[in-house]
Amino acid sequence: MSTVNAYAATSADAPLVPATVERREVGPRDVLIEIKFCGICHSDIHHVRGEWGPVTYPVAPGHEIAGVVAEVGPQVTRHAVGDRVGVGCMVNSCRECPPCRSGEEQYCLNGTVFTYGSIDRDGTDTNGGYTTHIVVDEDFVVGIPEGLALDEAAPLLCAGITTYSPLKRWGAGHGKKVAVVGLGGLGHMGVKLAHAMGAEVTVLSQSLKKQADGLRLGADDYYATSDPGTFERLAGTYDIILNTVSAKLDIDAYLSLLALDGAMVNVGAPPEPLSLNAFSVMSRRRSFAGSMIGGIAETQEMLNFCAGHGVGAEIEPIPAEKINEAYERVLGSDVRYRFVIDISTLG
Amino acid sequence: MSTVNAYAATSADAPLVPATVERREVGPRDVLIEIKFCGICHSDIHHVRGEWGPVTYPVAPGHEIAGVVAEVGPQVTRHAVGDRVGVGCMVNSCRECPPCRSGEEQYCLNGTVFTYGSIDRDGTDTNGGYTTHIVVDEDFVVGIPEGLALDEAAPLLCAGITTYSPLKRWGAGHGKKVAVVGLGGLGHMGVKLAHAMGAEVTVLSQSLKKQADGLRLGADDYYATSDPGTFERLAGTYDIILNTVSAKLDIDAYLSLLALDGAMVNVGAPPEPLSLNAFSVMSRRRSFAGSMIGGIAETQEMLNFCAGHGVGAEIEPIPAEKINEAYERVLGSDVRYRFVIDISTLG
Repeated sequence: MSTVNAYAATSADAPLVPATVERREVGPRDVLIEIKFCGICHSDIHHVRGEWGPVTYPVAPGHEIAGVVAEVGPQVTRHAVGDRVGVGCMVNSCRECPPCRSGEEQYCLNGTVFTYGSIDRDGTDTNGGYTTHIVVDEDFVVGIPEGLALDEAAPLLCAGITTYSPLKRWGAGHGKKVAVVGLGGLGHMGVKLAHAMGAEVTVLSQSLKKQADGLRLGADDYYATSDPGTFERLAGTYDIILNTVSAKLDIDAYLSLLALDGAMVNVGAPPEPLSLNAFSVMSRRRSFAGSMIGGIAETQEMLNFCAGHGVGAEIEPIPAEKINEAYERVLGSDVRYRFVIDISTLG
Repeated sequence: MSTVNAYAATSADAPLVPATVERREVGPRDVLIEIKFCGICHSDIHHVRGEWGPVTYPVAPGHEIAGVVAEVGPQVTRHAVGDRVGVGCMVNSCRECPPCRSGEEQYCLNGTVFTYGSIDRDGTDTNGGYTTHIVVDEDFVVGIPEGLALDEAAPLLCAGITTYSPLKRWGAGHGKKVAVVGLGGLGHMGVKLAHAMGAEVTVLSQSLKKQADGLRLGADDYYATSDPGTFERLAGTYDIILNTVSAKLDIDAYLSLLALDGAMVNVGAPPEPLSLNAFSVMSRRRSFAGSMIGGIAETQEMLNFCAGHGVGAEIEPIPAEKINEAYERVLGSDVRYRFVIDISTLG
């Protein structure tokens, strides 16, 4: 065991504070990573504030981790000391169930071990990337290709794969029309990735406030959903609607924007139930679907794709001492488009 | 124009009565069909009672039509006098929009012309199969293969294609687990077709009342949804749930029965909105989808499939004078599994 510096939550309603967390000894198949950058995901805030269920405190959140390999166990074959690597939302899974065997560890039937707030298969609590070091089984460590800056790569480990996976699965590409609902941390990656895949991309945002950004990031069109005319104008248009918003939307209105066989795929979810009419999916054979992050192999594929297309996250780097301020700004949608903690400031 | 005998509705709240309807002259591309049998679909009742919108009375409903070609226009090439043929829910469409061009006339962007209750492209009101004869453009007439009895084939034109199309599209077949919700007119066809496609089939019905029937029709399992244990036992099991029920269900409970990438496809819809939680689709990347009948080419494919697999509807033949009684029995779920009107009784 070793003790490493961290920023951690000690209760649901107190600010995060400097703290330490324990890391296990580097096992035969483990990789010790010196963390360089960690993105701040909205999920971190939900988790530490207890909004998604009971929490074991203290907990260091963070699952958008980019760093460099500092040590490897004797059986490690996939990573070497000095490699630039990343860790996303998962650090373990059962490896045996059908989803795990097909590379969909995020849907492990025996319980995915998440990067923080989970109990690892050795019985210890997991802690995330608001720390100087992390020890992770090599199978859950991905390589960050040359050409991707580590700070801009960090958010790809959650926001990137969460949008890449459904875009890929539902066929975003040349000749397809994709609407991205919401231009936040997830949404801005959705726009960049769908554009890089060759799709025609529209941003559907509450207002036109970020229109210039949206177009710069690769959107072909940008509409305000506060204007009811938007829904009339765009009826029956899209093959894919990627919904990155976790507010409660008028689902029937968004479904009406889908073309024949179109799918509205949700990667953000409000806690309250949604209402929709079955006719909204029966007409034009539409689907209302959902997706959660992506598998490890697919995460590596996404990073390679991003390196090949020059796609990184749009970030605002911050020192660790600004984490609490950043949380408030995330909640106020005041970030373009991801805060990334410079872990060197954790000392 | 010719005048033919019919059973028609004259208002939303009166019983159907013997009547006549007008049929257009047989045009160059038209087929005149002597109707032998017409199934009674629940939609017929919704329509004539004005439950789906304003109705032009009198109207003869019926869109599960099986008969014999009596006359063809000079340009007709696909059908000949004496052929056994069927007509389903549609008699025309624009032929020009992308869905029409890809054989999905039921999703015509310029408005599918339905077999009754629509205005045809020549401006006349359409009337359905509770009549002795119908004149239909040859492109909307399908052949009923030898080996399918006309009375058992009639319900295939709606109940058959409405279940075949989504089962095919969502991949029902060997190695796939399909649950059919509801064992009525649509549900019993869903069971027969999914079984014939090679899938493992479960019926989910309110009670076990029709269990023996379900197993005889091809189901491997049969569970009562009134037993809460059913939902625990079957969690995460199905690749496809075909929902044929138009009552308001607990959608989250049914979605929980889907395996990774499973889809719940709705072919029946309650008028009121449904409630569901986005997490129900995000977990295991599920879809809540819908489907409406099927295209003309696919209807022919379905009939050929049924002939090849010895699949017909389970029917109770009735004379025309029993139509009103049959309606009441349909509303009371007292039919196994489709009433078919013997049109010879219409004189």
